[in-house]
Amino acid sequence: MAVGIGLIGTGYMGKCHALAWNAVASVFGDLERPVLAHLAEVDAALAARRADEFGFARATGDWRALIADPAVDIVSITTPNAFHAEMAIAALEAGKHVWCEKPMAPTIVEAQAMKAAATRSGKLAILGYNYIQNPIIRQIRTLLAENTIGAISHVRIEMDEDFMADPAALFTWKSEQSSGYGALDDFGVHPISLLHFLLGDIARVSAHMSKPFATRPTMSEGPREVETFDIATIMFDLESGASGLLALNRAAWGRKGRIALQIFGSTGAILFDQERMNEFQLYTRDDHLAVQGFRTILCGPVHAPYDRFMPAPGHGLGFNDLKIIECHELLNQLAGHPAHTIDFATGLSIEKAVHAMARSHAEQRWVSVP
Amino acid sequence: MAVGIGLIGTGYMGKCHALAWNAVASVFGDLERPVLAHLAEVDAALAARRADEFGFARATGDWRALIADPAVDIVSITTPNAFHAEMAIAALEAGKHVWCEKPMAPTIVEAQAMKAAATRSGKLAILGYNYIQNPIIRQIRTLLAENTIGAISHVRIEMDEDFMADPAALFTWKSEQSSGYGALDDFGVHPISLLHFLLGDIARVSAHMSKPFATRPTMSEGPREVETFDIATIMFDLESGASGLLALNRAAWGRKGRIALQIFGSTGAILFDQERMNEFQLYTRDDHLAVQGFRTILCGPVHAPYDRFMPAPGHGLGFNDLKIIECHELLNQLAGHPAHTIDFATGLSIEKAVHAMARSHAEQRWVSVP
Amino acid sequence: MAVGIGLIGTGYMGKCHALAWNAVASVFGDLERPVLAHLAEVDAALAARRADEFGFARATGDWRALIADPAVDIVSITTPNAFHAEMAIAALEAGKHVWCEKPMAPTIVEAQAMKAAATRSGKLAILGYNYIQNPIIRQIRTLLAENTIGAISHVRIEMDEDFMADPAALFTWKSEQSSGYGALDDFGVHPISLLHFLLGDIARVSAHMSKPFATRPTMSEGPREVETFDIATIMFDLESGASGLLALNRAAWGRKGRIALQIFGSTGAILFDQERMNEFQLYTRDDHLAVQGFRTILCGPVHAPYDRFMPAPGHGLGFNDLKIIECHELLNQLAGHPAHTIDFATGLSIEKAVHAMARSHAEQRWVSVP
Amino acid sequence: MAVGIGLIGTGYMGKCHALAWNAVASVFGDLERPVLAHLAEVDAALAARRADEFGFARATGDWRALIADPAVDIVSITTPNAFHAEMAIAALEAGKHVWCEKPMAPTIVEAQAMKAAATRSGKLAILGYNYIQNPIIRQIRTLLAENTIGAISHVRIEMDEDFMADPAALFTWKSEQSSGYGALDDFGVHPISLLHFLLGDIARVSAHMSKPFATRPTMSEGPREVETFDIATIMFDLESGASGLLALNRAAWGRKGRIALQIFGSTGAILFDQERMNEFQLYTRDDHLAVQGFRTILCGPVHAPYDRFMPAPGHGLGFNDLKIIECHELLNQLAGHPAHTIDFATGLSIEKAVHAMARSHAEQRWVSVP
Repeated sequence: MAVGIGLIGTGYMGKCHALAWNAVASVFGDLERPVLAHLAEVDAALAARRADEFGFARATGDWRALIADPAVDIVSITTPNAFHAEMAIAALEAGKHVWCEKPMAPTIVEAQAMKAAATRSGKLAILGYNYIQNPIIRQIRTLLAENTIGAISHVRIEMDEDFMADPAALFTWKSEQSSGYGALDDFGVHPISLLHFLLGDIARVSAHMSKPFATRPTMSEGPREVETFDIATIMFDLESGASGLLALNRAAWGRKGRIALQIFGSTGAILFDQERMNEFQLYTRDDHLAVQGFRTILCGPVHAPYDRFMPAPGHGLGFNDLKIIECHELLNQLAGHPAHTIDFATGLSIEKAVHAMARSHAEQRWVSVP
Repeated sequence: MAVGIGLIGTGYMGKCHALAWNAVASVFGDLERPVLAHLAEVDAALAARRADEFGFARATGDWRALIADPAVDIVSITTPNAFHAEMAIAALEAGKHVWCEKPMAPTIVEAQAMKAAATRSGKLAILGYNYIQNPIIRQIRTLLAENTIGAISHVRIEMDEDFMADPAALFTWKSEQSSGYGALDDFGVHPISLLHFLLGDIARVSAHMSKPFATRPTMSEGPREVETFDIATIMFDLESGASGLLALNRAAWGRKGRIALQIFGSTGAILFDQERMNEFQLYTRDDHLAVQGFRTILCGPVHAPYDRFMPAPGHGLGFNDLKIIECHELLNQLAGHPAHTIDFATGLSIEKAVHAMARSHAEQRWVSVP
Repeated sequence: MAVGIGLIGTGYMGKCHALAWNAVASVFGDLERPVLAHLAEVDAALAARRADEFGFARATGDWRALIADPAVDIVSITTPNAFHAEMAIAALEAGKHVWCEKPMAPTIVEAQAMKAAATRSGKLAILGYNYIQNPIIRQIRTLLAENTIGAISHVRIEMDEDFMADPAALFTWKSEQSSGYGALDDFGVHPISLLHFLLGDIARVSAHMSKPFATRPTMSEGPREVETFDIATIMFDLESGASGLLALNRAAWGRKGRIALQIFGSTGAILFDQERMNEFQLYTRDDHLAVQGFRTILCGPVHAPYDRFMPAPGHGLGFNDLKIIECHELLNQLAGHPAHTIDFATGLSIEKAVHAMARSHAEQRWVSVP
Repeated sequence: MAVGIGLIGTGYMGKCHALAWNAVASVFGDLERPVLAHLAEVDAALAARRADEFGFARATGDWRALIADPAVDIVSITTPNAFHAEMAIAALEAGKHVWCEKPMAPTIVEAQAMKAAATRSGKLAILGYNYIQNPIIRQIRTLLAENTIGAISHVRIEMDEDFMADPAALFTWKSEQSSGYGALDDFGVHPISLLHFLLGDIARVSAHMSKPFATRPTMSEGPREVETFDIATIMFDLESGASGLLALNRAAWGRKGRIALQIFGSTGAILFDQERMNEFQLYTRDDHLAVQGFRTILCGPVHAPYDRFMPAPGHGLGFNDLKIIECHELLNQLAGHPAHTIDFATGLSIEKAVHAMARSHAEQRWVSVP
C-alpha cells in the first residue's frame, strides 16, 4: 500500500518537501505514488490554503493532530530548528517515520534526545542533508572508493554566502548569541556532512571565529553589538589521517551558494563548487603529461540518478531536484534497499563536530571530536 | 474552478509535463491546483501505470478518448513530432487548449494547418519552447529592453551536442532524409526561438550544411550513406539590421547541452551558455576602465520567478524547472494575465526560418525569411 | 660568426622585435648572441635615442643606409603596412634576410612582388605571424598530427576586440575605405594563419560584412559615413573537406584579444582562446564516460619551448615571448634546422584568402580561394 | 652615467635577471640602458659561455672578483639560498647595491645579518619578490586603497603546486629536514609578501603542517622517512584585525602555479589566481542587484606598466615580464623615484612570520609574529 505523508511547516523547506513528495513517483517510476495525507501549519487557514496548493488531503493548525493521524506514515518536519526535537520525538513515539530538516536542534542535549527516540522507536529518522544527494557528489564518492585519485592527503572545503555581508543591514536575530555561534552552526553542518559522506569523520579541530562588523545598526536604538561570528576558519585532521581546512563566511560579498571542495590524493585531485552544481573537476596523473589537466565533467545520465530526470547530459539539475532524490533514498531505505541517507545518529556526530569547533575557538587550542 | 489536464505521451517530455502539472501550484502559490484528469499512451497498460505514477485520475490507450473527455480543459501533447498536427488539431477542434511540444510538425503544410486550427478555435495553442522561460533569459531580455548594452549590432548563437559524434555508432533514423535536414531542424528551432524572444525576427539567411561522416555502419549490411547534415552554419541579418551567426553541431564531442549566446551592442555585451544555465555575463562600458570586465551574474530571487523556487540566490534551477515556469505562463495566459509564451503563429514563423535556411543551403545563396 | 641585425621602425612592433633580438640567445642558449648593428627611424634623433634604449650600435634616419650596411644580415621591418613592400624588396635585393611584420601589404599586387623578390633572392623572407609560435598552439598541432581527436569535421574561429566598439569615438582612418575592408583585413590574417598552421588551407568561402555604426562623429564636421566593416562573418570549407566558421568583430565590447578556436574531430575536440593563451582544452572520448570532460591544460616545460623560458609549469608566457620564439625559429631556419615560420609564399596565400572573402561579400556568393 | 651590472648565478633565476637587464630600457624607454659588466658562475667556462649569451662584457669563476669590479654598481644574486648572506653582505660592504633572490637565507640569524649590512651600507638591498610587480596586483592594491571593497574583514590565500605530489618520486633534499620546514618556507614567503603588499602585516598565527607521504623511495636503500611537511595550513589575524587563512601544498596534483587570493570587504570582494595572472575578479555591491556579479577584468594599458609592454589590452604579460618590472622599480628607487620594492628589512619580517608559523605548529598554539 502507498505510504501516507504528513508535512509540518510550509515555508521554503516545506514547499521543497511538498515538491519532492509530488514528484518522486513520476521521476523514478519505481514505486507507488505516496498519498499526501495531512499538512500542518501554525495558522489553520494557511494550512488549508497550502494543502490545496501542495495537493494534501487534509489540513490542520495543530501538528499533534497530524502526528495522530493513522493515514500518516512519514512525517516531514520543516519547521524552525527550535521545534525539531519536540516534533520529531513525538512523531517517532507515535510510530511514524521522520524526515527532519537539518540541523537537528539548537542544543546537543536535544539532538541526543532525538537520536535516543529514533533508536527506541526503530523507525526511520532521516535528516535533510540534501547536498550529498547530488549525482556529482555521488560520482566523486565512487571515484574516491575506486581509488581514482589514490590515498587522500589533504582536503579544503569552503562555504560562503553574502546574506550577512552588508554592514548597513539592520541587526537581526542572526546576530544574537541565542541563535548559535554564527557561520559555524549556520553553515558548518553542510560541509561536515559532505566530508562525512566522502571522506569519513573528523578527528580533531582547531578553530578560529571572527566578526566582520563589531556592531550592526538597529531601527531606533543606535548600533548594537554583534554577538555571533559571521566568519569561521577551522584546521582539522580526519580520522583517516588526512589534513584539512574548513572555511565559512556568511559575509562574503559575491558568494551566493558556494560550497567549494578541493580533494588532493596521491594520484590526482577533485574539485567541486555547489554554485556550479552540475559539474566537477578531476585531475589524474594517469594522462600523458602533455595533456594532463583538470577535466570539467558535466552531469549526465551516466551519473545516476540524473538519468531519471533527463535523458540527455549537460542539461542541468536544480537544487530542488536534490530533495526529490533524497526523498527517493528515504523511500528506498524504507523498502529495505541500499540508500544514501544521514540518520539521527550520524546527524548527532555532525553536530558534535560543530560544538567541538566552538570549544576549540573558545579555548584557543586543538580539540578532539568526540 | 480548477482546470482539468490531459496528457498524451509519457516519454521524457511527457514526464516533464507531468512534473510541471504536479508542481506548478506548489511553486507559484497563486493559482488553484490543476486537476490531473486523463492520461493517454499507445499501450493501455502502460497508460494505467504512468497515470498512477504521475497522479492522473484516468488512463486510456486511445488519445481521442482523452480529447473527448469533458474533464479535460488543456491537452499536453508530448508524442513524436509526426503526431503533433493530428492531435493538436483534433484537440483544438474539440474546444481544448493545447500545450504542444516543439517543433510543430515535420512539414510546413502541417504546421500551417495547426496554426489555422488554433486561429479558428480561439483556444490557447502554446508550444513548449522552454529555454525562453529561464529567468536568466528573461533578465537578458529586460536588459536589452532597458538599453543596457545599447543598440545591438551583432549576435552569435551556437547549439552543440555530441550524441551524433561517434562515427562508430550505428546508422539510425536520425541519418535518414525522412527525419529532416539534420542538425538544422533537430536543433535550429531552439536558438531561433531565443533570437525571436530576445532580438526579434530573422530577415535573411545564408546557410551551409555539412556531414562529418559520409557513411555510418549498420548492423549487418555494411556502411550506409548518411543522408542528413549533422552540422549547419548560418549567416543572417535580423529585421533590426543586426548581423549574426548561427552554428549547429550535433556531432560536437564534449558539448552536452551548449546553447552559447553572444550579443554585442553599442555600449556593452551579454554572454550566456545553457550548459551553465544559472548564470550569464554582462559587460558594460559604463564601469571605470580599470575595472571593466564581464560580470558573471548568478541567478537569484531578483530574477523572477527564481524567487518562487528558492529564497536564496545561487542555488540553481534545473532544466525541468523551466517547464514548470512555462506551465505557469500558460496558466497566466489562460487567466488573461501577461505571459511569455510562443504560440502556433510564432512557432510557424520559427519553422519558416528553418526551411528558408535549408533552401539557402540547397541553392547556395542568400534567402529571405518569409 | 654572429648575425648582424638591422631594425626599421620602433613603434610597438619595433620594440617587440628589439626585445626578441636582445633576449633570444639568453632564453635559448643554443646560438651565438646576435649583434644589434643598425636601427632606422624616420626621425634621426628618435633613431639615436631608440638605438641607445634597444642596444643597437648605430642609428639612422634613412632606412636605405641600414639596408646598405654590410654589418646587417637580417632586416626587421616593423613600419606601417604601406612601407613593407618597398623595404622588404629593397632588403632582399641587397642580399639581406627579411623578417617583416604582417600583413604583407595593402594590395595583392605588392604582396606578389614581395614574394617574387623573395624567390629571386634566395634569402629568408619571414612574416611575423607570432600566434603560431605559442607552445600551446604547437601542442595542438602535435595532437592533431597524432590523430588525438580523429578526423577533423568542423572548426570555428572567432577574433574579437573592442577598440572600434565605441560609437562616440571620433572617425579615424580605420573607417576610411583606403585602410582596407575593415575587420576582415585588420584581423583576418591572424586566424587564417592559425588555420593554415593547424588544419591546412581554405578551399572556398562565403562572407558577409556589416557595420555596427553607419556614421561616426568628427571633430568639427558632424557625423561622417563609415566606409569599412567592423564586423565580418565567413562560412568556409577547408581543402581537407572540413567545414568552418570565421567571425571577426573589432567592435565587440568586452573582448580584448580574443582568438577563440573550436576544433571538432571524430574522437574529440580542442578549444583555445588567446585571452588565456597559457592554456587549452582537450576532450577525448577515450576516457571512461563518467569522467569525460574538457581538460584545461596549463602550459609547461613539456610544451617546448616553454622550458627555455621557465622550469616550472603554469607560470605563464606573455604575448611578447611569442616574438622571442619566432625570432628563434627564424634563426633556426637560417641555420638549416627545422623551423615553424610563415614565409612570403604562405603569406601571399593567406592574403589571397582575405581578398576572396571580400569578393564573396561583394558578390554575395561562394568564392573559391585561389 | 649608465649603471653597471654584475650577475652572480646563471640558473633559471640568473637567466631571468639577465633577461630583465637586457629588456628594461627597451620596455620602459625612460632610462639609460644598463651596462652588463660582469657575470660570475662557479665554473669559469660556463661563466664565459653565459656571458656571451646574456650579453655581459666580462666573466669570472670567482664571484668576489665581480664584487670587486669598479664597473659594477648593482649585483644580482641568483645563487642557491645558502649563499645569499655571504654574497649580499660582501657586495654591500663593497659599496654595491644588491638585488637578491628570495628568500633571504635559511636561518633568521643570517637574514638579520643581511639586514644589518644593508642598513650599515646605505645601499639599496632589494629582494626578488616579483609577484607583487604584476600590474593586476598593483591594481588590486589601488582598489583597496581607494576603499572600493570597503573595510577588509577576511582574506584567504592558497599556494599550490604539484612537484612533490608523486609518492613514487625518489627522496630528494627537499624531504630532508636540513632543507627547511617544507611547503612553509618553500612557498610561504610568496603569499606573505602579497599579504604584506596588499593588506599589511600578520599579527598572530596558528599553523598546522602535515605530510602526504610518510616515506619516499630511494634508489637503492628502500623507503626513507620524509622529514619535511609538503602541506601547511595557517589561520591568522592581520594587524588590521582582519582574519585569514593561508594554505600551502606542494603535493597538490593539478596545481601548477596557483596562488589564489580571496579578499572580502564590507562592500565587495576581490579574487585573483596567479595561474591566470592576466586577470582578476571584482565584485561590488554598488551595481544594481540584478546585475551584481564578479567581473573578470583583463590586464590592459590602463593597468600600468602593462602599457610599456603592449598597447592593446588582453594580450597577456608573462611571468618573466614581472622581473622586468621589478628591475625597473629597483632602478626607479635608485633614481630616488617612488617604487614598489621589498627591501631586506621587509624581507626579514616576512621570514619572521614563516618562523612564527613553524613554532606555532611545533607548540600547537597561537603564536604572535614578532
